[in-house]
Amino acid sequence: MASDDQRGLHYEQTLMYGRYTQELGAYAKEEAARLREEGGWRRSVKDHSRSLELLEYDRGRCAKCRICTVRCQKFLISRVGEDWIFLILLGLFMALVSWVVDFAIAICLQAQKWMYGGLESNVFLQYLAWVTYPVVLITFSAGFTQILAPQAVGSGIPEMKTILRGVVLKEYLTFKTFVAKVIGLTCALGSGMPLGKEGPFVHIASLCAALLSKFMSLFGGIYENESRNIEMLAAACAVGVGCCFAAPIGGVLFSIEVTSTFFAVRNYWRGFFAATFSAFIFRVLAVWNRDEETITALFKTRFRLDFPFDLQELPAFAVIGIASGFGGALFVYLNRLIVQFIRKQKTINKFLMKKRLLYPALVTLLVSTLTFPPGFGQFMAGKLTQKESLVTLLDNRTWAKQGIAEGFDYIGNSQAWNHPQVNVFVTLVLFIVMKFWMSALATTIPVPCGAFMPVFVIGAAFGRLVGESMAAWFPDGIHSDGTIYPIVPGGYAVVGAAALSGAVTHTVSTAVIVFELTGQISHILPVMIAVILANAVAQSLQPSLYDSIIRIKKLPYLPELGWGHHEKYNICVEDIMIRDVMYITLNCCYRDLHDVLLTGHLKTLALLESSESMILLGSIERAQLQALLSLQLGRPRRLEYLRDRATAEKKRLSMVSHPGSEDGSQRVNQEVRFQISTEESSFSSTPTLSMKPLKPALKRPSVVDRPPDIPMPTSPQDHSGNTLKNLFCVNPETEGLEDDFDVDDDMTIREIAEWEENQLDEQVNFDNCKIDPAPFQLVERTSLHKTHTIFSLLGLDHAYVTSIGRLIGVVSLKELQKAIEGSVAVKGVKVRPPLASFRDSGTSGSSSSNSENEATELHKLWDRHKSMSLPREHLASDSDEKSQ
Amino acid sequence: MASDDQRGLHYEQTLMYGRYTQELGAYAKEEAARLREEGGWRRSVKDHSRSLELLEYDRGRCAKCRICTVRCQKFLISRVGEDWIFLILLGLFMALVSWVVDFAIAICLQAQKWMYGGLESNVFLQYLAWVTYPVVLITFSAGFTQILAPQAVGSGIPEMKTILRGVVLKEYLTFKTFVAKVIGLTCALGSGMPLGKEGPFVHIASLCAALLSKFMSLFGGIYENESRNIEMLAAACAVGVGCCFAAPIGGVLFSIEVTSTFFAVRNYWRGFFAATFSAFIFRVLAVWNRDEETITALFKTRFRLDFPFDLQELPAFAVIGIASGFGGALFVYLNRLIVQFIRKQKTINKFLMKKRLLYPALVTLLVSTLTFPPGFGQFMAGKLTQKESLVTLLDNRTWAKQGIAEGFDYIGNSQAWNHPQVNVFVTLVLFIVMKFWMSALATTIPVPCGAFMPVFVIGAAFGRLVGESMAAWFPDGIHSDGTIYPIVPGGYAVVGAAALSGAVTHTVSTAVIVFELTGQISHILPVMIAVILANAVAQSLQPSLYDSIIRIKKLPYLPELGWGHHEKYNICVEDIMIRDVMYITLNCCYRDLHDVLLTGHLKTLALLESSESMILLGSIERAQLQALLSLQLGRPRRLEYLRDRATAEKKRLSMVSHPGSEDGSQRVNQEVRFQISTEESSFSSTPTLSMKPLKPALKRPSVVDRPPDIPMPTSPQDHSGNTLKNLFCVNPETEGLEDDFDVDDDMTIREIAEWEENQLDEQVNFDNCKIDPAPFQLVERTSLHKTHTIFSLLGLDHAYVTSIGRLIGVVSLKELQKAIEGSVAVKGVKVRPPLASFRDSGTSGSSSSNSENEATELHKLWDRHKSMSLPREHLASDSDEKSQ
Repeated sequence: MASDDQRGLHYEQTLMYGRYTQELGAYAKEEAARLREEGGWRRSVKDHSRSLELLEYDRGRCAKCRICTVRCQKFLISRVGEDWIFLILLGLFMALVSWVVDFAIAICLQAQKWMYGGLESNVFLQYLAWVTYPVVLITFSAGFTQILAPQAVGSGIPEMKTILRGVVLKEYLTFKTFVAKVIGLTCALGSGMPLGKEGPFVHIASLCAALLSKFMSLFGGIYENESRNIEMLAAACAVGVGCCFAAPIGGVLFSIEVTSTFFAVRNYWRGFFAATFSAFIFRVLAVWNRDEETITALFKTRFRLDFPFDLQELPAFAVIGIASGFGGALFVYLNRLIVQFIRKQKTINKFLMKKRLLYPALVTLLVSTLTFPPGFGQFMAGKLTQKESLVTLLDNRTWAKQGIAEGFDYIGNSQAWNHPQVNVFVTLVLFIVMKFWMSALATTIPVPCGAFMPVFVIGAAFGRLVGESMAAWFPDGIHSDGTIYPIVPGGYAVVGAAALSGAVTHTVSTAVIVFELTGQISHILPVMIAVILANAVAQSLQPSLYDSIIRIKKLPYLPELGWGHHEKYNICVEDIMIRDVMYITLNCCYRDLHDVLLTGHLKTLALLESSESMILLGSIERAQLQALLSLQLGRPRRLEYLRDRATAEKKRLSMVSHPGSEDGSQRVNQEVRFQISTEESSFSSTPTLSMKPLKPALKRPSVVDRPPDIPMPTSPQDHSGNTLKNLFCVNPETEGLEDDFDVDDDMTIREIAEWEENQLDEQVNFDNCKIDPAPFQLVERTSLHKTHTIFSLLGLDHAYVTSIGRLIGVVSLKELQKAIEGSVAVKGVKVRPPLASFRDSGTSGSSSSNSENEATELHKLWDRHKSMSLPREHLASDSDEKSQ
Repeated sequence: MASDDQRGLHYEQTLMYGRYTQELGAYAKEEAARLREEGGWRRSVKDHSRSLELLEYDRGRCAKCRICTVRCQKFLISRVGEDWIFLILLGLFMALVSWVVDFAIAICLQAQKWMYGGLESNVFLQYLAWVTYPVVLITFSAGFTQILAPQAVGSGIPEMKTILRGVVLKEYLTFKTFVAKVIGLTCALGSGMPLGKEGPFVHIASLCAALLSKFMSLFGGIYENESRNIEMLAAACAVGVGCCFAAPIGGVLFSIEVTSTFFAVRNYWRGFFAATFSAFIFRVLAVWNRDEETITALFKTRFRLDFPFDLQELPAFAVIGIASGFGGALFVYLNRLIVQFIRKQKTINKFLMKKRLLYPALVTLLVSTLTFPPGFGQFMAGKLTQKESLVTLLDNRTWAKQGIAEGFDYIGNSQAWNHPQVNVFVTLVLFIVMKFWMSALATTIPVPCGAFMPVFVIGAAFGRLVGESMAAWFPDGIHSDGTIYPIVPGGYAVVGAAALSGAVTHTVSTAVIVFELTGQISHILPVMIAVILANAVAQSLQPSLYDSIIRIKKLPYLPELGWGHHEKYNICVEDIMIRDVMYITLNCCYRDLHDVLLTGHLKTLALLESSESMILLGSIERAQLQALLSLQLGRPRRLEYLRDRATAEKKRLSMVSHPGSEDGSQRVNQEVRFQISTEESSFSSTPTLSMKPLKPALKRPSVVDRPPDIPMPTSPQDHSGNTLKNLFCVNPETEGLEDDFDVDDDMTIREIAEWEENQLDEQVNFDNCKIDPAPFQLVERTSLHKTHTIFSLLGLDHAYVTSIGRLIGVVSLKELQKAIEGSVAVKGVKVRPPLASFRDSGTSGSSSSNSENEATELHKLWDRHKSMSLPREHLASDSDEKSQ
């Protein structure tokens, strides 16, 4: 795979997040198809060898017994193909990864504490140790990720969302990325910066699933099925969250909310199964490691069960929810602002881009300086790690009333909040404010990191603040009847944590995660109320953090249709479609094919009956056409031509009589051979060939042995002259077939060009070509709303717009994206006012039902069809559009 | 609405469950459309009156101020249209209903206990009271439901599943059904039979949502949108579960799992919002009623938090899960068996059908006799109500070790399990066995009732049994280290309850419901493991209870595609489609329209360009065509004709010169008038008219005033002679237009018939007709798998199969249903072996990806198209099919 450098993904590694400059969905799909094909080929080879094995056994002594053994083996292997084995393996593996990462992080943090503690005599040395350690770790993490796999940077949830949408971002699911992500994440979190592990774990789990799937496909079964892989990726996302927090239910729900638009309920159990198993193993490992006596929650709370909260405390919880909503929106905004600010400042950006590791180091330096415990850190519990902060914040004692010092379980940790000169409220406020911008800043560092956990801790601190205030206000609790039930500030912390993380991620399931994390569900109603309020506020102000990153990274994701935008019902496909469709016709010659391939970029081309009728017959993949063209212009065919010519020459020399009939039979022969090769190989070999990655031209390849019975489809281009060089590069593995031909390739370049010109004028024979006879079709009057629904439901990439069977346009994800984002009329797309106005007048009187908007009077429809000119109006703007 | 009796739904009220004998989706959709249209009309009237109001205000003294008031009012009304107000109202209302129902049930049960307790002196009288009370209640419930709304019988979840699939079962969402369901449910549960309230509450919540939606549409806004209503129904299902168990999260998840196939994540928050609010109010009512001190869980448990269970107890939990799986499957099987057994026994069935109330009475008698506390009931805790049983079963004390009597909170209740002669294990086993078949039997009684709660209790008892056994086996707990942690049998009960209810309903979310019900989440891992195992076992043995009922009731629901049935990929649409499509062409005459309407039953008809080209232009609703036909043959048109004739006659009498030009101008006039009326009224009035329910013919109507400017579209048929009588009945509201015409209707029946014959020969003018230009299209080679996905994703009813724009068939839900259920080749559908074999050979070599299966070689495809005969081959079996 030497073509890494020219993958054509146009991935631009910027300072913080990478950015795509070109739509890569189509390319990625082709790559995925190639992979699949490779898998299929490998399998067929394996099948072959297995049957050989069987034959060998047959010759042995106790053949029957051995056949039985082979059958058992086969059965076992077929069992391997079942979902639950895959899910168990995935869960097991992820639990191990999660535990190991946690373990490594704990050791890293301990090391820092130890260093810091050992240098108590000298504050300056202490500061140096406190600061250097995270700077080194973060810089290493950034550098390592940068070198190995830049795709591992960031959360990974936006990418997974895009992948689950159907766009295959292939480089996100490689082994390299896996290694980079795991090691980078461990180092990043080990530094003690306010970063999270949730998002990366979703990504790591998906990586695991993809790699495991690849590995399992060695054993055969259904691992080649793309839609199955998508389902498994969805389950993997659940596993990621599940094993990160030991929260199986919350994991499933969170992953659904964060990654899916439409969720197939039939996949539900996969997520639960895998996440439960993973969470189980994750906690069992803790027991096994003697950290815990038995399986309990990760951040177990001990609130009283009898009277968790009073009804009159609910307004306080609602306030937490609403404030968290604003806070969450602010966090997302701040995060985006930082990214955009640094991107905009050209000079800073340039400088930082040159010294890529400077930015992480600077940010880390700033953050760790501010948290230095003897310095400013003493006012914000700076010496606590994230986990310690959370544990103290969720404590069931009241700080304000009884003071922090007395009777704390975590003596060392509790002291951090209790500054001798400063009130605990000030500490909490400072903690919240400082951590807020620090987290927003830290998550822009190009290391593998998430934002969930920092936000969660900030939310908990905010909740604790409100709770402590309430406790100070009502020292004996609110309840008016006899018994005194003091207020539990820890419960407020739980509510705050769920609300703020819910607001940032736009999810409700953080509530469930919180219950699973704390092991108590007694505060269910306050938590639900706060989370819902926070969501309501945050969703009306900002996109979710993941959607924000999707926009920043320009990932090819279809945005949601906004609510209350009823004008979306009035926009039709005809307003947004591209009319200048690239197509090929049934009777076109190879030259047309060549031209189309040269000019267009789409990976699928429409096949029409003729350019007059414009009737859509189906669609052909670009790779298929490339294969056709290479077949026509390739070296083997040329050699054949030479051989034919030589034979004819010879014949002409030996006997000059009746050459015409000879020629005819020759042609017939050739055609018959084509037919045979079609039957045998069109389903396996042709794509294997056509999907090969494009390699730089003029690379000399090695010789591989290949069954000689299917020579035509496997023979690619070589010395393909001027024409093909534009399109193809040499395919190395399938060359060396020259030995089959006993003719010397003595054509000059000029002769070759001439021959190719002739070849190009022949009519295309589509017999060998795989045609999708059912590409997705819309009609002109399909509304934008319906189109959006269909695209997101079916995960479409593009759809043809037809009118009575005639192709009149094409809509791709890009057009749809634009239309939704409101830039319909910007360029390349023509909005037709008369029709729009007609529709408006039509719909104003009727109810807003979908079908009625699309209903039209027939005579208008029909007249338009009749008077319709050929739809290929070349709009200058269209081509601008494409070259973008 | 006098047409109740001839609704055409073919709902057959059988002994236990009702059954549909005809597909009613299409009819129901039309009904829904009618309702919507009515709403629209009402709104337009209201708008009118409001603007009048405004004008009146303008004339007043301080006009500005009043306009402002009106605007504010308008703004407020527009706010009413927002989702959250609707959801809050729904939640509030449902919480009230749930609380009131609970309250009434509690009173009923108390009354029984009081009666039973008061007669302690005489066992016979006691028995009589114990037995008569439930018999009377159940019989009343059955009779009441039967008389008011037979649709209220049963759970309601299967119906909601079908409705959310897109099939509008309109009579399930009426006010009558609501009343019947609430009162019937209260009585049924008040009887103390082992019945549940969950399923009915899902139905009640949906009824509430539908009625509320209807009510809110009076205020305008978006309440007419059908897809919005479906979303609201989905939220309502969540509310139903949420307010029944005070379990908002579990409610949302359970309702998703039970009712949806594909879930739109964007609707997620609605469910959470409404369910949370509802659960909150439901529990607040309990606090307000002084039942509780604060908001806590419904069945609060008090298990220890530190060490909920040992790792080595997990195998026991797994055993509970697996056994529950088998138990759940058995329950579903038993339930179906009972229904089918009684249906099959013709004589019993006949007798019971005559005396409909006998069956409920007999079953109740049997069940209550067996639970009579001094009788057999003493061995199975018969005197406990369902709620009391559950509370005792979830108790955190160990019965086996420390004995039941000492130190129980519920002194009276605990005694029930502790029979002096019999071991507690025997009591538990008897309870489980007896309740098992009792519940399966009781849920077949035709009253509103669910099966969730009984199953839940049985599961809890089973778990308690295992737990007690474990406690007896390991009296000091399993944990090997120093501290003694005794086993908590209550935890086992929680696990068992979740597992068995999960197995019966095929859901995982019962785990969440259990946590919310008990208020403790400490047993999360055992519960999850058991639930998943139970699901795995149960799903491989039986359909879920709801799917089973769907099959018994023959509801029009599309079954799921089975897993591992890879042959589904090889079946194509062309194998299952109906080739004999009813269609109309652009140039057809009214006679063709008439014939098509007479013969067909489909509610949508294909519109083709011509019967030669077969090019599909769009689809027209049947009602539209009926309107067209009524327009052509209706009385107004005939009167016009008479007037024309009279004028012509008069003219001819007065001046016999140039009659031709006169005639021409007359026609032109008429046409112009048609055009104008189209512009004005085609969007509101025509459908209003055409959707009117069919009324019995020859009914004399009253006169209504109607704006005179749109006479044509609003004028329906009257005295429509022989032809129309077949199709239409008289529309009463829109007659009395005779006064507009100054011609006497003096035509004889014979003349009318003649005139109608002439009219029928005219060509159809589709100008006034609303045509859906984008009906859903498939191609012949679309695989069954893809078709199923598309149908379930988009909630389609039917789809046309086209080949290069030409209509060649139609696939409706019915065909798909059959194909999936494996009866593809039974009748009416032709499987084409050559193609199938071609496909098989084609796919055997390739990987099993979807798109490849559909790829075909073009020349074959093309040849087939060319040689294709007219697709209207009349298969005799097809018509059989339809008349079924």
